Amino acid sequence: MTEYKVFGVELAERIARVTIDRADKLNAMNADFWREIVEIFRWADDADEVRVVVLAGAGEHFSAGIDLQLLGEAASQMGPDAGRNAERLRRRILELQASFNAVDECRKPVIAAVQGYCLGGAIDLIAACDMRYCSEDARFSIKEIDMGMVADVGTLQRLPRIIGDGMLRELAYTGRTLDGREAQAIGLANRCYGTLSELQEGVLQVAREIAAKSPLAIRGTKRMIRYMRDHRVDDGLDYVATWNAAMLQSSDLPVAMAAHMSKKKPDFED
Amino acid sequence: MTEYKVFGVELAERIARVTIDRADKLNAMNADFWREIVEIFRWADDADEVRVVVLAGAGEHFSAGIDLQLLGEAASQMGPDAGRNAERLRRRILELQASFNAVDECRKPVIAAVQGYCLGGAIDLIAACDMRYCSEDARFSIKEIDMGMVADVGTLQRLPRIIGDGMLRELAYTGRTLDGREAQAIGLANRCYGTLSELQEGVLQVAREIAAKSPLAIRGTKRMIRYMRDHRVDDGLDYVATWNAAMLQSSDLPVAMAAHMSKKKPDFED
Amino acid sequence: MTEYKVFGVELAERIARVTIDRADKLNAMNADFWREIVEIFRWADDADEVRVVVLAGAGEHFSAGIDLQLLGEAASQMGPDAGRNAERLRRRILELQASFNAVDECRKPVIAAVQGYCLGGAIDLIAACDMRYCSEDARFSIKEIDMGMVADVGTLQRLPRIIGDGMLRELAYTGRTLDGREAQAIGLANRCYGTLSELQEGVLQVAREIAAKSPLAIRGTKRMIRYMRDHRVDDGLDYVATWNAAMLQSSDLPVAMAAHMSKKKPDFED
Amino acid sequence: MTEYKVFGVELAERIARVTIDRADKLNAMNADFWREIVEIFRWADDADEVRVVVLAGAGEHFSAGIDLQLLGEAASQMGPDAGRNAERLRRRILELQASFNAVDECRKPVIAAVQGYCLGGAIDLIAACDMRYCSEDARFSIKEIDMGMVADVGTLQRLPRIIGDGMLRELAYTGRTLDGREAQAIGLANRCYGTLSELQEGVLQVAREIAAKSPLAIRGTKRMIRYMRDHRVDDGLDYVATWNAAMLQSSDLPVAMAAHMSKKKPDFED
Amino acid sequence: MTEYKVFGVELAERIARVTIDRADKLNAMNADFWREIVEIFRWADDADEVRVVVLAGAGEHFSAGIDLQLLGEAASQMGPDAGRNAERLRRRILELQASFNAVDECRKPVIAAVQGYCLGGAIDLIAACDMRYCSEDARFSIKEIDMGMVADVGTLQRLPRIIGDGMLRELAYTGRTLDGREAQAIGLANRCYGTLSELQEGVLQVAREIAAKSPLAIRGTKRMIRYMRDHRVDDGLDYVATWNAAMLQSSDLPVAMAAHMSKKKPDFED
Amino acid sequence: MTEYKVFGVELAERIARVTIDRADKLNAMNADFWREIVEIFRWADDADEVRVVVLAGAGEHFSAGIDLQLLGEAASQMGPDAGRNAERLRRRILELQASFNAVDECRKPVIAAVQGYCLGGAIDLIAACDMRYCSEDARFSIKEIDMGMVADVGTLQRLPRIIGDGMLRELAYTGRTLDGREAQAIGLANRCYGTLSELQEGVLQVAREIAAKSPLAIRGTKRMIRYMRDHRVDDGLDYVATWNAAMLQSSDLPVAMAAHMSKKKPDFED
Repeated sequence: MTEYKVFGVELAERIARVTIDRADKLNAMNADFWREIVEIFRWADDADEVRVVVLAGAGEHFSAGIDLQLLGEAASQMGPDAGRNAERLRRRILELQASFNAVDECRKPVIAAVQGYCLGGAIDLIAACDMRYCSEDARFSIKEIDMGMVADVGTLQRLPRIIGDGMLRELAYTGRTLDGREAQAIGLANRCYGTLSELQEGVLQVAREIAAKSPLAIRGTKRMIRYMRDHRVDDGLDYVATWNAAMLQSSDLPVAMAAHMSKKKPDFED
Repeated sequence: MTEYKVFGVELAERIARVTIDRADKLNAMNADFWREIVEIFRWADDADEVRVVVLAGAGEHFSAGIDLQLLGEAASQMGPDAGRNAERLRRRILELQASFNAVDECRKPVIAAVQGYCLGGAIDLIAACDMRYCSEDARFSIKEIDMGMVADVGTLQRLPRIIGDGMLRELAYTGRTLDGREAQAIGLANRCYGTLSELQEGVLQVAREIAAKSPLAIRGTKRMIRYMRDHRVDDGLDYVATWNAAMLQSSDLPVAMAAHMSKKKPDFED
Repeated sequence: MTEYKVFGVELAERIARVTIDRADKLNAMNADFWREIVEIFRWADDADEVRVVVLAGAGEHFSAGIDLQLLGEAASQMGPDAGRNAERLRRRILELQASFNAVDECRKPVIAAVQGYCLGGAIDLIAACDMRYCSEDARFSIKEIDMGMVADVGTLQRLPRIIGDGMLRELAYTGRTLDGREAQAIGLANRCYGTLSELQEGVLQVAREIAAKSPLAIRGTKRMIRYMRDHRVDDGLDYVATWNAAMLQSSDLPVAMAAHMSKKKPDFED
Repeated sequence: MTEYKVFGVELAERIARVTIDRADKLNAMNADFWREIVEIFRWADDADEVRVVVLAGAGEHFSAGIDLQLLGEAASQMGPDAGRNAERLRRRILELQASFNAVDECRKPVIAAVQGYCLGGAIDLIAACDMRYCSEDARFSIKEIDMGMVADVGTLQRLPRIIGDGMLRELAYTGRTLDGREAQAIGLANRCYGTLSELQEGVLQVAREIAAKSPLAIRGTKRMIRYMRDHRVDDGLDYVATWNAAMLQSSDLPVAMAAHMSKKKPDFED
Repeated sequence: MTEYKVFGVELAERIARVTIDRADKLNAMNADFWREIVEIFRWADDADEVRVVVLAGAGEHFSAGIDLQLLGEAASQMGPDAGRNAERLRRRILELQASFNAVDECRKPVIAAVQGYCLGGAIDLIAACDMRYCSEDARFSIKEIDMGMVADVGTLQRLPRIIGDGMLRELAYTGRTLDGREAQAIGLANRCYGTLSELQEGVLQVAREIAAKSPLAIRGTKRMIRYMRDHRVDDGLDYVATWNAAMLQSSDLPVAMAAHMSKKKPDFED
Repeated sequence: MTEYKVFGVELAERIARVTIDRADKLNAMNADFWREIVEIFRWADDADEVRVVVLAGAGEHFSAGIDLQLLGEAASQMGPDAGRNAERLRRRILELQASFNAVDECRKPVIAAVQGYCLGGAIDLIAACDMRYCSEDARFSIKEIDMGMVADVGTLQRLPRIIGDGMLRELAYTGRTLDGREAQAIGLANRCYGTLSELQEGVLQVAREIAAKSPLAIRGTKRMIRYMRDHRVDDGLDYVATWNAAMLQSSDLPVAMAAHMSKKKPDFED
């Protein structure tokens, strides 16, 4: 297992447990964070033995968002030509976006477990995950508006597919803090647990269930759902038919069918 | 009224009541099912005297999904050339999809009434209906994942427009069973009734209200809502303006207006 | 401040308060209404001193929708050639749509405060606003279906991004009346207040918070959310990167950052 | 081989030769035409022994377009309600379009060979074919404009992908007649031959070459090109990768490779 | 007829002849130009007696593009905040674009007649017209690249639908000058005439033909072709069916049909 | 300058000259080719001193396409599970596509200079370039059809935007060889030169002109044209306005303007 500066990564039961491990800085996202997260999710995408990823924060909080020092550095690199600055800024933002795209594009489901602060960039991050679960003490806020800027690494692009338009606008315009219960009520979190340990146990339970399914079928299902965020129903139907034209020839079907008949748990190849 | 092997079809009060009538097999979807459902919904689409369709399952369950025998047959038809198998499978899946497209494309609203099991292919089916109502004993599950396959007849394409993305992924990855109450809570069902008879009465009530409206206006409204699943707001506005350019010249407006003035119920031509 | 026939407009605390002021006619939308609303929202869009708009109805109701007299006049202008009538009708509908597009396209957030009736065209109107808040006595109904027509000024185009597809179809097909509590439950309203004065105070509170933020950031955030109604996630990410390439060079960031450090309220230029 | 009223159909060398056989009426498109063309192209799509289709007109002309009698009948079925007429007309046009969609959607390439008149509906028809070849005496005209109507069965939808926008508008607005040479010059025809027999021989030559290729590869190539008329480059790349995931497992590749090595002609399974 | 500062406008034979009348400045586009062109094309769009528009330049040239003084003024309005400057610039560009959108959106065909210089903004302008005709002495150049800027009022958006991608890139990157003959060869002009008077006569001839057609059919045809620049084939087919549902009920069809039978010229109502 | 196995790379006059340097194998594309081309174009994209790229083949030919050995290896890695094979193949194809996407996405214009063979994968490659120039002896063929497969690295996705649909289908279905003259005639090549040295000189001339322009403006222009392959006209107009909001604040405009006034050649910063 590779060593990371900002993350802890463990693999057990075919579940990759990825932890932002910078609790003394409220797990704020520094330069290492943005670079390492791509490497980790490329590995999770590639490695056959990983079937699902759980993403969490070490300590009391999930993450307080982007490290302000990073923003400061970006500002200090501005030159005299506003046009060239703009091109440089645009490319820098695209790079940051690419870090969270790696989460979104990971072929294996990614589950976020959120306790405490989940602010600014942390919302952008969990919006790129498949599902979000939280504890009652979670505190969500689209903090970018209070930094005088438009959130630009995914919140405004991915949240509209997750929560309702009206509530999203309220949260994005006001930066209002949402607790765990309300996050569940508006669909931002699938479920709010009472305590951190219940959250951890609950998330692990979901991860185990996913890890036991046909990995081909899970990856195909994720592809289809991601596809439908941006495509028409008729295109989606054609796409899944083309996909399954190959995938239904896999042995996972007969394996599943046999298990179903014999009432046993199927065991799928990686 | 035509006779069907798998379905019962009745027409009364301008409401077509279509019942999956294979209760001894949990209303599982066999070859006849997939063929007959197209015929029935083409008829419902064409016949002027049908203004709304209610779709239900006979017995204790709505439907347990695709008949496993059918899957087995498909598997047995595979030949030695993986490419040609793929083309054959792709066309077969497109055919099955076409059966539920006939429900989706029916110009008259289709209301699903769900009790008991609603598994796998049955979710694909109700996702192609306009609205879903259920009783407390309903049990929904995206069962395909347990068959080792990606759902390919509409669930993953149409549900993202109906329920939230986060919950959809949980259900699609885990195959978790949802009861009637939770189905209402997440928006899968419009309403959950206590008992089967309350469900039947409630659905009939909604159907009667729809049957009393201007059929031109109902069909146009359905077209517009379906259009918006896949199109931009500006395209939708242009489309409805083009549509109403003709339809507002109908006599249904003055009929409705006169009824409104005289406080009587309007009576619209088929 | 310009004088309007149908509207009252006030500006205070950088909040434009726009009131439909035709209470004796239930704030029904007559010819003046459709013309003046464009002028008002163009002004709100242009004027630097306006940071947010609150839209409300005078008296007991928000609005009973389009003035039936207006519909009658349109009908009386039909000539003998159905094709030329159609072209005229199509252009007339596009004009009406343009009135509500002015609300949708206003760069500043628009908050609707709804009490009493909110019927037919009034639903089209609030669907073009950013957020909706209501009191318990609010009564929402997609009334067009009872006029024998397809709603054509925005309800069927914009509501699918705001409330769930299943419930939208029920409301659009049946014209069923929804009260304030249910409006909140299905996401049509962000929040339902007990009384009209609580509603007014609550909405003003939200408006004040928005008015205190960086106006550049608020306008950019609104642009991004509107963009995502109709575009892909990857297009949205590219668009915000291109947008912020210029906007991050604004002084609003350092102003916000400095305020954050000194724990003071930032004061942003218009 | 089925007998048709309006068409002659022959199958030889895996080439289906479909001839509009109503020379005494300038091969005008009557009710039988619109019905039979669907049946023929469904057969050509299904039958494994058909690898390519050549579409031609018997006698001196390709076709003079829709039979005016048919237009007259449609007109005579108009009732008193302009709205209901509109719905009926809309469905009728969709049906006519479906006839040419069957040509467009046929999985095997369709080659049009055009001599003499190719007017109105005949342009709609050849626009749905894969390629067009003609003789010098060919006369093309978007005749609908002279009937006082907007062409509605495919010309205005498919030609913009075939010829330049500027020339298309000139032809569509003026109905100007184009001869075979100019048709080649603007890309409407791939090639203009001197005489009818040269045209027939040339088209047969192209058809024979196509019939000798891997049928899986030909059908896949057609699917990809049709897909790109309406989709983005990135979507097209993903789609072909998903398609080839299955199709590259076919034996047609080793067959082609072996033939390539041995300098022999490959012989592909149907 | 309204008087304009920069344009001459005449109406005869149902043809509006719009001339850029600033020959001493090479018909460069100053502030008046951008404002008046919108007014003129709104009028042409509205006025029933206008069936087609011919757009030309007075003197030896069509137009040398945007007036450099205008660019200079824009530059001088920049303030100290790069973000606020950006917002102001963005809105200013959208305004300029709106001027040429008025040409593009005019329901009547617009024909550009080009002699001499057609540089920079003038290319943006003719790209918004329906068809372009020129004389041999025409000189086209995408001049923006030599001003150190990206063309932003339509050239790069509309030309890709008119000329081939490869040639467009060469012209846009190098600013190379194209003469009339080459403009015809690459499809930028429909036809290149030897002299200015031949050009004028030729264009008038095309305009007269268009003016004699059913105005409803011409406007519908233009709408369809514009629609297809941005939409899918299936959407286009549905749209034209919906459009014709109303328009085929017009009397222009029987008028055209009767004229066709009697071999006389039809006379269509405005 | 990095050393490459398959490519020669030189930089002079701000022009990167990239040469496929495997003449003894007809410049066939082996594993090194696919890896190195990404590195080279990432460098060309990043390096400020590169303003334009010229891509050519060493020796008598441009390239004979993919190395057949590579195809053979891919075939030999197939396992027993058709579904898992499909997933592996799909990812492998996406990787190959990514190599040519690096060419397409390079912010600097890429000019292909083609002599001799340009077969199969080589067509996919030049389709990802901005412009193509060739000599008379060039021989183009969409060779994949003769390998029994659907071209899957860009030809079928990018060529439809470059050459006409009808001719593309002929070339893709038959694999017919096109020479340099015909390539120019159908728009595949911008220009066909008589000899190789004329081609080299001609291409260099174009490259020099591009290198002398404002690099910001060139890169923005390329972005806009690429954007329009896949987006609507209205989206393109909004995008360029947003882009130029920042870029028009660059000093390249005043530099260009000053040069224009003083009739000198401008000198733009990298």
